[in-house]
Amino acid sequence: MIMFQNDYVEGAHPAVLQKLIDTNMEQSVGYGEDPYCEAARERIRQAAGRQDVDVHFLVGGTQTNLTVIDAALRPYQGALCAQTGHINVHETGSVEACGHKVLALPGQDGKITAEQVKEAHDSHWADGAREHMVQPKLVYISHPTELGTLYTKQELLDLRKVCDECGLYLFLDGARLAYGLAAEGTDVTLADLAALTDAFYIGGTKVGALFGECVVIRNPALKEDFRYFIKQKGGMLAKGRLLGLQFLAMFEKDLYMEMGHHADRLAMKIRQGLREKGYRFYIDSVTNQQFVIVENEKLKELEKEFVFNHETRYDEKHTVIRICTSWATKEENVEKLLERF
Amino acid sequence: MIMFQNDYVEGAHPAVLQKLIDTNMEQSVGYGEDPYCEAARERIRQAAGRQDVDVHFLVGGTQTNLTVIDAALRPYQGALCAQTGHINVHETGSVEACGHKVLALPGQDGKITAEQVKEAHDSHWADGAREHMVQPKLVYISHPTELGTLYTKQELLDLRKVCDECGLYLFLDGARLAYGLAAEGTDVTLADLAALTDAFYIGGTKVGALFGECVVIRNPALKEDFRYFIKQKGGMLAKGRLLGLQFLAMFEKDLYMEMGHHADRLAMKIRQGLREKGYRFYIDSVTNQQFVIVENEKLKELEKEFVFNHETRYDEKHTVIRICTSWATKEENVEKLLERF
Amino acid sequence: MIMFQNDYVEGAHPAVLQKLIDTNMEQSVGYGEDPYCEAARERIRQAAGRQDVDVHFLVGGTQTNLTVIDAALRPYQGALCAQTGHINVHETGSVEACGHKVLALPGQDGKITAEQVKEAHDSHWADGAREHMVQPKLVYISHPTELGTLYTKQELLDLRKVCDECGLYLFLDGARLAYGLAAEGTDVTLADLAALTDAFYIGGTKVGALFGECVVIRNPALKEDFRYFIKQKGGMLAKGRLLGLQFLAMFEKDLYMEMGHHADRLAMKIRQGLREKGYRFYIDSVTNQQFVIVENEKLKELEKEFVFNHETRYDEKHTVIRICTSWATKEENVEKLLERF
Amino acid sequence: MIMFQNDYVEGAHPAVLQKLIDTNMEQSVGYGEDPYCEAARERIRQAAGRQDVDVHFLVGGTQTNLTVIDAALRPYQGALCAQTGHINVHETGSVEACGHKVLALPGQDGKITAEQVKEAHDSHWADGAREHMVQPKLVYISHPTELGTLYTKQELLDLRKVCDECGLYLFLDGARLAYGLAAEGTDVTLADLAALTDAFYIGGTKVGALFGECVVIRNPALKEDFRYFIKQKGGMLAKGRLLGLQFLAMFEKDLYMEMGHHADRLAMKIRQGLREKGYRFYIDSVTNQQFVIVENEKLKELEKEFVFNHETRYDEKHTVIRICTSWATKEENVEKLLERF
Repeated sequence: MIMFQNDYVEGAHPAVLQKLIDTNMEQSVGYGEDPYCEAARERIRQAAGRQDVDVHFLVGGTQTNLTVIDAALRPYQGALCAQTGHINVHETGSVEACGHKVLALPGQDGKITAEQVKEAHDSHWADGAREHMVQPKLVYISHPTELGTLYTKQELLDLRKVCDECGLYLFLDGARLAYGLAAEGTDVTLADLAALTDAFYIGGTKVGALFGECVVIRNPALKEDFRYFIKQKGGMLAKGRLLGLQFLAMFEKDLYMEMGHHADRLAMKIRQGLREKGYRFYIDSVTNQQFVIVENEKLKELEKEFVFNHETRYDEKHTVIRICTSWATKEENVEKLLERF
Repeated sequence: MIMFQNDYVEGAHPAVLQKLIDTNMEQSVGYGEDPYCEAARERIRQAAGRQDVDVHFLVGGTQTNLTVIDAALRPYQGALCAQTGHINVHETGSVEACGHKVLALPGQDGKITAEQVKEAHDSHWADGAREHMVQPKLVYISHPTELGTLYTKQELLDLRKVCDECGLYLFLDGARLAYGLAAEGTDVTLADLAALTDAFYIGGTKVGALFGECVVIRNPALKEDFRYFIKQKGGMLAKGRLLGLQFLAMFEKDLYMEMGHHADRLAMKIRQGLREKGYRFYIDSVTNQQFVIVENEKLKELEKEFVFNHETRYDEKHTVIRICTSWATKEENVEKLLERF
Repeated sequence: MIMFQNDYVEGAHPAVLQKLIDTNMEQSVGYGEDPYCEAARERIRQAAGRQDVDVHFLVGGTQTNLTVIDAALRPYQGALCAQTGHINVHETGSVEACGHKVLALPGQDGKITAEQVKEAHDSHWADGAREHMVQPKLVYISHPTELGTLYTKQELLDLRKVCDECGLYLFLDGARLAYGLAAEGTDVTLADLAALTDAFYIGGTKVGALFGECVVIRNPALKEDFRYFIKQKGGMLAKGRLLGLQFLAMFEKDLYMEMGHHADRLAMKIRQGLREKGYRFYIDSVTNQQFVIVENEKLKELEKEFVFNHETRYDEKHTVIRICTSWATKEENVEKLLERF
Repeated sequence: MIMFQNDYVEGAHPAVLQKLIDTNMEQSVGYGEDPYCEAARERIRQAAGRQDVDVHFLVGGTQTNLTVIDAALRPYQGALCAQTGHINVHETGSVEACGHKVLALPGQDGKITAEQVKEAHDSHWADGAREHMVQPKLVYISHPTELGTLYTKQELLDLRKVCDECGLYLFLDGARLAYGLAAEGTDVTLADLAALTDAFYIGGTKVGALFGECVVIRNPALKEDFRYFIKQKGGMLAKGRLLGLQFLAMFEKDLYMEMGHHADRLAMKIRQGLREKGYRFYIDSVTNQQFVIVENEKLKELEKEFVFNHETRYDEKHTVIRICTSWATKEENVEKLLERF
């Protein structure tokens, strides 16, 4: 079986793994205070184009989201996000488990707009009985979104502006960030994200690391005592260097972007190929996740050789499946896929 | 100014207050273990038509909701409720502060249906990755709802059935229960609620008590150690007898229902009167809350003499206001109101 | 049976109750924003000798403690307190339920010292791995303590000083404050507490109110959005004026202090009387709680007429009981008690 | 510098790393449902000598402790543990962050006794006002303890007995389990732990894995929906096979015990060597952690070549240091250490 169901079916990019092999028997201090983490932080700061950010390494995405959000909010404050946002749907209520309401807004292709944020904020503060309601304080967006879509630079500028006006934090979940940054036609760079968000994270798990996410914090209010949060939430890796080493491998040369380009190119090849065969898409995605509408009979046949994620039922006879490429996807498998479709 | 904005602008019904006066200098043990609480519990059991229920007295509605819900749910479980549900909108995220997600469903006039519950449940359990999502475990409904509407007995039977099938708790918020039970045309009794829910509460604050809500628990799973929850959440009144005495006053004769009838009768008088004058209603409510669409200019004029709750903007020229009657509403004020409209 | 087991066996002081009676059918806005609450706030500010404090009314003690402490702490911070502190022992882990560790220090007669606080603080910050430990941020003291003892003004000044040096909040639980302020020989006034703490509360439940505690906040950092906390924790009374009215009754003249004097005088009478009869005391208390060592046989006899709180086993043959006086204790009952002992 | 300060300064045992290398480009399903995890579970069940246990893999120790404890306790229940217990001291209040009080008991060399547990339990239930206090429900012990000491089989049998009598869960933190199981003179086996605890975990991070802890649950009450907890707390690794592979490497042959023996043998060599040189020990430990009392001047000299953990100040002139061996400690470094001392 060839797996296309997600972007974490393989281990790590060989260059990433090699770093772990090369340093395996070295001794170093724990908890992210070793020289490799420091070196990786330096690379990340360079890639982000600014020195005024704090850089922390955590193990996984849910953990990262809950840690940053809990650090940002006071107990009566909540996080605005799209209805489809990962924290709203697929993290078992981990933000609520920290005591905070997720304030879901109807999304458009997984995205929310500055207007929606403004309206949610204004409507809260206009209410005389506002203390009876959760106070919006943080805007959570993902880039790419859970549906593979991307924000434009202008949209991010607008969100930044509204957050500044309203005293809100802007937090960006970059679990699949490479696949966003490397997408054809995007005008958003890593430096833009560092400049426009209060905090964001650079995903490793889904982009070539064994595991690991890298949080970049620009807003000083979110920096204070952040390590206490990491530790309390169970996210502080004893052998912290493992995280530093992996991000070092991904950022000391251009590997992170290369992996993004590889996955996106193959995703576009699939998109193009399926379009030519007359397939329709559920969402128009320019990144590594493609949502294709497939006739159920056909799907059954394809699933003798391939594994996909079933996203949703389209109608009586059709299903929406997700086809994911990644840094590890082989061109030959994409070609075989296109043949069989 | 005559206040119609809610049903808690006055103190307590004189008969309720009198009980507190009569017993003021008596000595009794604290925390709800005194003879008055015991007597009140007995009256409630009689009114509910069953002896197998546990009866607890708490101070307020938000506290009651969060305490019952936290007692019912394990950390990864959530509460299904209408989008307009009080716990979803007007309790400052108190359920989330206990760690639980409120799973909002699109409501119809403040109500949710057995079908919606079934679908939410089935869709969770059908998902292979269900542990990535909050598990629905409790259904929260209010009766009357926040919009003044009522469930029919059949609707409650349907909800009970689906909860039994799905292993869900059914919890009913009766903050304004008297106004529901006394409404014209309802076929739902207190005994029905005791039989059909796992737990519900009989509201005192909005129906003639100084304060106080009475939780009735039928499901043994929710009974265990419930007093620990009350205490931990700050809801255990030291002079617990104050709650027992008030509910005793409301239930030793028929006072609770009488107060409900009084408010509902006057609400229907307002509804009838305004209809005759050509006013339209935002929601068709048979209980003490009436949601009227008023022209903004007219409203400004009315607000020289009366206080209303502004519910929502209807259109450029109209506002939806809430007019509440209560056990304490004076007929003469209703008449004056109708004159001025 | 005559009850001496605690200071909340009766209802309210007649003057307090009268206020509720007099205003019962008035209409007013809810949630503590009515004129009576405003007037009570003004009186409290006068009694506290400063205008720069925020004054809030809550229903009960546990609720007040958990609300203030949750408002003061970030998730990884904890509250230092004496091992015997109410929050550490008798509030069902309500502070922990808000996510915060209670950092118990060995107390001396229910009190902790500035030195202990300093040491706990310094030891945390001296540790290189401090983010692996809970950060002390608030000092919780009670006055009178759970053992009836009092801080001196110098001790409070020392605590203030160390809190300033260490960046800690000082929060004082005044559940029995009147009995502390009115005690013979104390040099601590209400104005001192307002000046020396970041926040404290004036207990009503145990001093003549039906229920209610009044939080006084001096530190601006604790003032922000405090009403959200009250609401979220279920402590915002719909008919908020009931709290304002009671505190108005207690503070518009000198009633609060009078009630304190009454209880303390009778407690001293008991202390003196029992000492003369040769009884020993477990703790040397100058306030309304007296902890007496009683021979078990004698106790059994006394308990035919009186109810006491059993505090702890002293030895095989003796028990430590607590005798409480209050604003409501009758002199004749004290005399009868002394006769029977 | 040669690091002796803890047992996680190196990466993974070569055999563990090799497994990751060998399988790196394979594709597999995520979240611990792959064949390697399944194979590892089977090995663990064999090593534990029973098939009726659930086996889960988590990333780190704090995460594992908080996840198991939160799964075991209802909101008003707490965990009994030694004052020195890791959850009480070095996990930034992560158990409290889940809402539960840690009920610390004075430990003897890091251990608690069945008698202490019984007394804590009985004293809670004997109290008429027990709902005002946290209900003890789980006993947390570590083996080896934070001080390197071990429980005997009889002590564990006694704890099991008292837990059965009192309805308590027994949870054992085995972060350094190999070093306990392999210690000279111990009569406790892995099968004993599986039989005598309700749940325990087999530490990987400190014993040769890159990271990872393996939870073994025998009590059915703790098994239900455990994967929801893992996910909600951020402990569910996307590439879950990484954990399975590592535990497979450690348990498919005898590697886990071999690593334990290696570390313990070298620790005993250090102990013997330092004893012969006249050094005193702070604690008598038979496992890989040795707590030695060193003169400060001497320490300064040693620290030119070696890194130790400073445990505590012994007196004006002496410090207690911790010397840790591990699976990776080189015999030559131990010899050099003994020479220099």
